[in-house]
Amino acid sequence: MSDRVLWCELALVDGRVQERVAIAVADGRFGAIETGVTAPAGATRLAGFTIAGMANSHSHAFHRVLRARTQAGCGSFWTWRDLMYRAAERLDPDSYHRLARATFAEMAMAGITVVGEFHYLHHQRDGTPYANPNAMGEALMTAATEAGIRITLLDTLYLHGGLTADGYAPVARVQRRFSDRTSDNWAQRLELLAPSSTQRIGAAVHSVRAVDPASMAAVREWAEQRGAPVHAHVSEQQAENEQCLSRHGRTPTRLIHDAGLLGDRFSAIHATHLSADDRSRLQTTSSTVCLCPTTERDLGDGIGPGALLAAAEVRLTVGTDSHAVIDMFEEARAVELDERVSSQRRGTHAASSLLAMATINGHRSLGWDDAGTIATGCRADLVTIALDSVRTAGITANTALEGAVFAATAADITHVLVDGNTVVSDGRHTRIDVSRELGAAIADLMEP
Amino acid sequence: MSDRVLWCELALVDGRVQERVAIAVADGRFGAIETGVTAPAGATRLAGFTIAGMANSHSHAFHRVLRARTQAGCGSFWTWRDLMYRAAERLDPDSYHRLARATFAEMAMAGITVVGEFHYLHHQRDGTPYANPNAMGEALMTAATEAGIRITLLDTLYLHGGLTADGYAPVARVQRRFSDRTSDNWAQRLELLAPSSTQRIGAAVHSVRAVDPASMAAVREWAEQRGAPVHAHVSEQQAENEQCLSRHGRTPTRLIHDAGLLGDRFSAIHATHLSADDRSRLQTTSSTVCLCPTTERDLGDGIGPGALLAAAEVRLTVGTDSHAVIDMFEEARAVELDERVSSQRRGTHAASSLLAMATINGHRSLGWDDAGTIATGCRADLVTIALDSVRTAGITANTALEGAVFAATAADITHVLVDGNTVVSDGRHTRIDVSRELGAAIADLMEP
Repeated sequence: MSDRVLWCELALVDGRVQERVAIAVADGRFGAIETGVTAPAGATRLAGFTIAGMANSHSHAFHRVLRARTQAGCGSFWTWRDLMYRAAERLDPDSYHRLARATFAEMAMAGITVVGEFHYLHHQRDGTPYANPNAMGEALMTAATEAGIRITLLDTLYLHGGLTADGYAPVARVQRRFSDRTSDNWAQRLELLAPSSTQRIGAAVHSVRAVDPASMAAVREWAEQRGAPVHAHVSEQQAENEQCLSRHGRTPTRLIHDAGLLGDRFSAIHATHLSADDRSRLQTTSSTVCLCPTTERDLGDGIGPGALLAAAEVRLTVGTDSHAVIDMFEEARAVELDERVSSQRRGTHAASSLLAMATINGHRSLGWDDAGTIATGCRADLVTIALDSVRTAGITANTALEGAVFAATAADITHVLVDGNTVVSDGRHTRIDVSRELGAAIADLMEP
Repeated sequence: MSDRVLWCELALVDGRVQERVAIAVADGRFGAIETGVTAPAGATRLAGFTIAGMANSHSHAFHRVLRARTQAGCGSFWTWRDLMYRAAERLDPDSYHRLARATFAEMAMAGITVVGEFHYLHHQRDGTPYANPNAMGEALMTAATEAGIRITLLDTLYLHGGLTADGYAPVARVQRRFSDRTSDNWAQRLELLAPSSTQRIGAAVHSVRAVDPASMAAVREWAEQRGAPVHAHVSEQQAENEQCLSRHGRTPTRLIHDAGLLGDRFSAIHATHLSADDRSRLQTTSSTVCLCPTTERDLGDGIGPGALLAAAEVRLTVGTDSHAVIDMFEEARAVELDERVSSQRRGTHAASSLLAMATINGHRSLGWDDAGTIATGCRADLVTIALDSVRTAGITANTALEGAVFAATAADITHVLVDGNTVVSDGRHTRIDVSRELGAAIADLMEP
């Protein structure tokens, strides 16, 4: 990491598209930023349109092996679940490290500078902790660092196998790996994690199906003491709402609210099927909602209430979740496009709002308040989008923001800087042969 | 065009994924096809997964200038319409040739080997025919040929400015270019077109808003005499249905049926808002329905009845229409993914069905019955998808079909052959600097 000056043909500075921008970088942060200037001598020139680094607010790295595979036949939900559990059963710390390293490197190539990894594959197949009880989580943290991106490990509490009429089902066979048995065990395990300066630890409640209210309160306490982010899957499918109402007489959002988890460090993942009361609770508590539209499309979850949440000024973020695709532009535009087909009206979310979901909002949701925008003092994360691909040709300064969100794809990203380090250059990862490593890691796990 | 042998690592032959496939090509057609063989000496080797050429069943080439631009602010429907008409006003045969050539070349790079160009920009701005009354249509035909792809010019009848309570509004100012004034004029103009062996002429009825039933009957007669395809925009938006019911007491589909247009050479474009009776009429007449999901998302049209039509065995095709994106894989998977979010169920359309929409069904809808599949005797159109990109890494023979449809993007296409000619090689167009030409053509038209 060396101090230097970058010069961008076009850049999104503090939310505005600016031409000919010189940006000083020192110690991994942005220094002085000058717009409308010629390139200083020795500056690294970035053609195209440069935006802040993107935050993938919701990821399960191991789902990368499912891409395409879960569409076999007609690809029912059970095709998906069976394959997902099969992959979950086979992983160990070494194979997960290899798979996650390649997956996170694919993310880097897609302009993702931080990932929120919602991690629940903690233990050995029979539920026994590894000798190092954080072997799996550390494999993920190491993988992110090697891939050149930051990580918030959202270490997930998972205790039960589902809601029943009068309690909780025990974890199923494959789920034994997920469970710490008690929230105390979970909290004690987290104490052993030692994140570096590009790693953070957050907490996650898997869902109201897997965590009872008393255990949620333990998560709240842990996170409150540390000012850590807390995430939870919320109301992804109607069945979850029905089970929760039947068991607790309350919606998942209300149950989580009553456990004290909602707040400005809390992100509800999916939140596809919310009541008006749920939305109001998320709003009044300044909670965040993370939409994962390409996964919600893939799984047939339905279209979330993005319009109503945005109107209520609930902070929105996006995540690639199951990695059916890893393309934050596709994710961001899907929020608006799915709204359009459902409401038959254009123009709910402006391109600037959609890009904010993928950048500054996401960083904030993952506990990185000093990233996600190009501004002096912030972490020096940059993503450059080529404007001379066949997809982006014709985009100019006036349409750069709309072009990035609605026309660009991950394949159009040429340069990525994370904390001042060049991770992608000329469309290639600087350290990793990503497709080769992906292919090998997936073959290891999924070939018969 | 030279006779030769291609050898594909993986290829979709007659609907089945086959490994190590040698394909002879002579006179622009497939000869002998052998599977499970080593590469013959001198064969051109194609790594990755090779499928048949794709058919873009619905295109308005000039809409390519709208990409990203129509998303400004919050991008209402009127933002879109104003910009679309502004582009329509500015075009002349030269500028349209340049724009269409670059747009069709972008299509070639996306694996599109034939385009159905729904063409209604016929005349000068004030409605006067050009000295050559087909100057605009011929510009499109030449553009396709130069771009290396086949074209079906769906020459469109457009007579009225909309439905009123008791008749039709006159064409608006910008629409004067669209109108031939009478169906006789339209038919006479079409007689002057002289397509080459890679060009076909079909007919189109713009919509029930722009064409009255008597004029539709004239189109039917013209097409019947020539065995030509006929396309029409049908029920794209609810407002069209309401106006048609109010004026004619019939739905658009029924009105078109009563005019004799439905049948196995007919394609209903969009068909987003159909009644059960409409669907039944399309089914019993063996009509085709062309879905344009990325445009329907962009315009907020709604989600079409793809599931019901498929269940009724109505032939489905797909088109990139407004070119918000040009990616046939995105188009094909959107048919299934939009169905999933709307029905909250996975697995309505198998990957093989989705790919058929983009290949053989589309070719058939455009009048090319001898293309769209890899089989001896068919036109030698091939599209090779890299399986070593970060998006496709991990896909194997067992998952190639699902991978092509659900994981690949246009950026993953490396080789395209059209009628035995190599049009795209190593991801580049062999004749045209596509992004440069696109940028120049768009700047010409849209810069102030």
